[in-house]
Amino acid sequence: MNAARPLPDRVRRIQAEMAERGIDATIVFKPENSFLLTGFNPIIYSHPVIAIVPAEGEPMMLVHALRDDHGRASAFVSDIRLYGAWSTKVTMGPNWLDALVSILGELGVASGRLALEEEFVPLQRYRQITERLSDADFVDASHFIDTVRLIKDPDQIEMARLAAKLADTGMDEAVRQIAQGVSEREISIQSMHAMNRYWTENLPDIEVADFGTLEGGAQNGLWTWTLVGDRMFFNCDNPTLRRPQRGEAVSVFIWANANGIHAENERTVAFGPLPDVNRRALDTILDIRETLRPMLRPGTRYADLFLATKAGLEKAGYPDNIPGRIGHGIGLGAHEHSSLDAKSELVLEPGMMFTLEPNLRVPGVCATQISDTILITDTGCEYLTQSRGGYIEV
Amino acid sequence: MNAARPLPDRVRRIQAEMAERGIDATIVFKPENSFLLTGFNPIIYSHPVIAIVPAEGEPMMLVHALRDDHGRASAFVSDIRLYGAWSTKVTMGPNWLDALVSILGELGVASGRLALEEEFVPLQRYRQITERLSDADFVDASHFIDTVRLIKDPDQIEMARLAAKLADTGMDEAVRQIAQGVSEREISIQSMHAMNRYWTENLPDIEVADFGTLEGGAQNGLWTWTLVGDRMFFNCDNPTLRRPQRGEAVSVFIWANANGIHAENERTVAFGPLPDVNRRALDTILDIRETLRPMLRPGTRYADLFLATKAGLEKAGYPDNIPGRIGHGIGLGAHEHSSLDAKSELVLEPGMMFTLEPNLRVPGVCATQISDTILITDTGCEYLTQSRGGYIEV
Repeated sequence: MNAARPLPDRVRRIQAEMAERGIDATIVFKPENSFLLTGFNPIIYSHPVIAIVPAEGEPMMLVHALRDDHGRASAFVSDIRLYGAWSTKVTMGPNWLDALVSILGELGVASGRLALEEEFVPLQRYRQITERLSDADFVDASHFIDTVRLIKDPDQIEMARLAAKLADTGMDEAVRQIAQGVSEREISIQSMHAMNRYWTENLPDIEVADFGTLEGGAQNGLWTWTLVGDRMFFNCDNPTLRRPQRGEAVSVFIWANANGIHAENERTVAFGPLPDVNRRALDTILDIRETLRPMLRPGTRYADLFLATKAGLEKAGYPDNIPGRIGHGIGLGAHEHSSLDAKSELVLEPGMMFTLEPNLRVPGVCATQISDTILITDTGCEYLTQSRGGYIEV
Repeated sequence: MNAARPLPDRVRRIQAEMAERGIDATIVFKPENSFLLTGFNPIIYSHPVIAIVPAEGEPMMLVHALRDDHGRASAFVSDIRLYGAWSTKVTMGPNWLDALVSILGELGVASGRLALEEEFVPLQRYRQITERLSDADFVDASHFIDTVRLIKDPDQIEMARLAAKLADTGMDEAVRQIAQGVSEREISIQSMHAMNRYWTENLPDIEVADFGTLEGGAQNGLWTWTLVGDRMFFNCDNPTLRRPQRGEAVSVFIWANANGIHAENERTVAFGPLPDVNRRALDTILDIRETLRPMLRPGTRYADLFLATKAGLEKAGYPDNIPGRIGHGIGLGAHEHSSLDAKSELVLEPGMMFTLEPNLRVPGVCATQISDTILITDTGCEYLTQSRGGYIEV
């Protein structure tokens, strides 16, 4: 193991989950998860990056030969194996499956208990693996990896603060643009450019690539989008040339990331004084946010945050407009798996990160979109996003 | 069906593939593919968008209730069904699985032959579906959908030309930035901003969102990245603050898209005169590109393009540096499934789109990165990307 890059605690926590289940090795394909356990994001995933986590010791990383130099420069693991053919590189086999089978043989676990991400691994790949390793016993890895991801390690928290600073920078610029009365698209592209400028000028060693699909890759994940007035009822859309009229609300959505860890910052900004019906919706949500603030500490249940929001909306006269959830986990995904909803059994713990976004949609009438990225600390919480809150009118 | 939005030919071609295989319905989850068959990209896919293609007639679209308004505004299909709970929307059931089972029952195919994308559908989802539809017979859809995607419809070709224009705009700005001797990151962010400005000023009705993962979404897919000098041996990386020295090559990579259809434009630019070893590599590749040009017409085999490249590299003294492939399909994916390699059995047909990128990597010595997006026409080809080619020195 590279002495300069100690293994993060999440590797130990994954291995503790594996020990509980008698798992000999976990084979990880999902880009967010292979990054979690190796530190390498190749950006383009048409050739899979596979993390192999043994019961003890450092994870191994299996990559296509063309990712060799990049992988060695980025990963916190040191045992990097190659597959495929590229230039003069020597590899373990023509494809990832042959190389994976060799590695599992070398570890002595080819007929052991192996964990795969059942929520991610496509049927075809699952069949290829289980046919070649017909003596092994396969169990699910998705659920325990998601559980481990709920708690962020110190290296991830440091990145989350930088991502939040990027998002705040984008929000400040968006609010300046809204004040000029320009279009959704102009607000969005100026906000993204402001984040890119901040990245270029202040964060020399940070990457802002995101995790892409198998058919592409997200080279730059500093994103702003904007919905003006009744366009809010689309909930999400690519920005258009629509400009706000005086008295309309403008909602700005920002996702930023630093070395793969995300922050979300969303604000609804009044472009001139709002009609009463819209102002009351915003004030209701801002009041609810204040009610929730002292609850943001270890020991509070996710469900209690949801129920306090529901009570606040009912009291304010919106019993028919209760959202399905009021936030979600965030980290290597902008939308990680946990939901702040009525059914959740999760309890806040130090190191948890999520978005806090109780919001209102009264179809055709009014809508709000306010979200901050929250970190739970030993004694309470830290608002990672810190741009101006409260009622904002320009 | 909305009369203003005729069904594209690809729906008919999917149904022809289904008829050959006796398939009663194809159930489509992969974002690129559900967009292909409905015209709707919600950008955020944490709630799946499902296209259901019956043996005859219009596809149906099943979306979460919160995507109702957006979906109706974007899709070319008119039969849109809802699941989940959101505000006051009335839905078919609390989750997509219940709704899907109802729809298949309504179509009378719940015990028929159903096709699923085996290269994409995760094991867990496959199990959920096959357990609920235990009388159905399941077959693969990935392969025939990929085959249909090889040929682009006129609406997609129109978008590809716009995407290529965006990519060319980004490349022109990147070359101007390189001439100033600025960093990889500065080149990249100015190039992306130039594309965003072009989009804002010239393409009012076009979306540039890409297809994201289940944990996020790619709000803006106008991407430039840059590798200076020996950083080329990483093949792909997030841009750094590295600036070119006189005599170094700078490679610029651009992906753009218009309504989901991608173009790729890549150039290797000399920052001042290059040392002979680098110049010879570039000249070799430029010569090979000229050799390939007259072969770009219906009837040529993918493999012949690869073999002509291999012969050119061998003749020029690079027999140990033959790449694995010299291009790939492009369309709704920046990297679609087909590869221009020795093993391919594909033959060029009108409507095919791919990148043409024979390139050299001699590890530690020299590298090139030149790529254009090519459309095969009835009589030959159209270079969709049209920015300056040949040897470029600034």
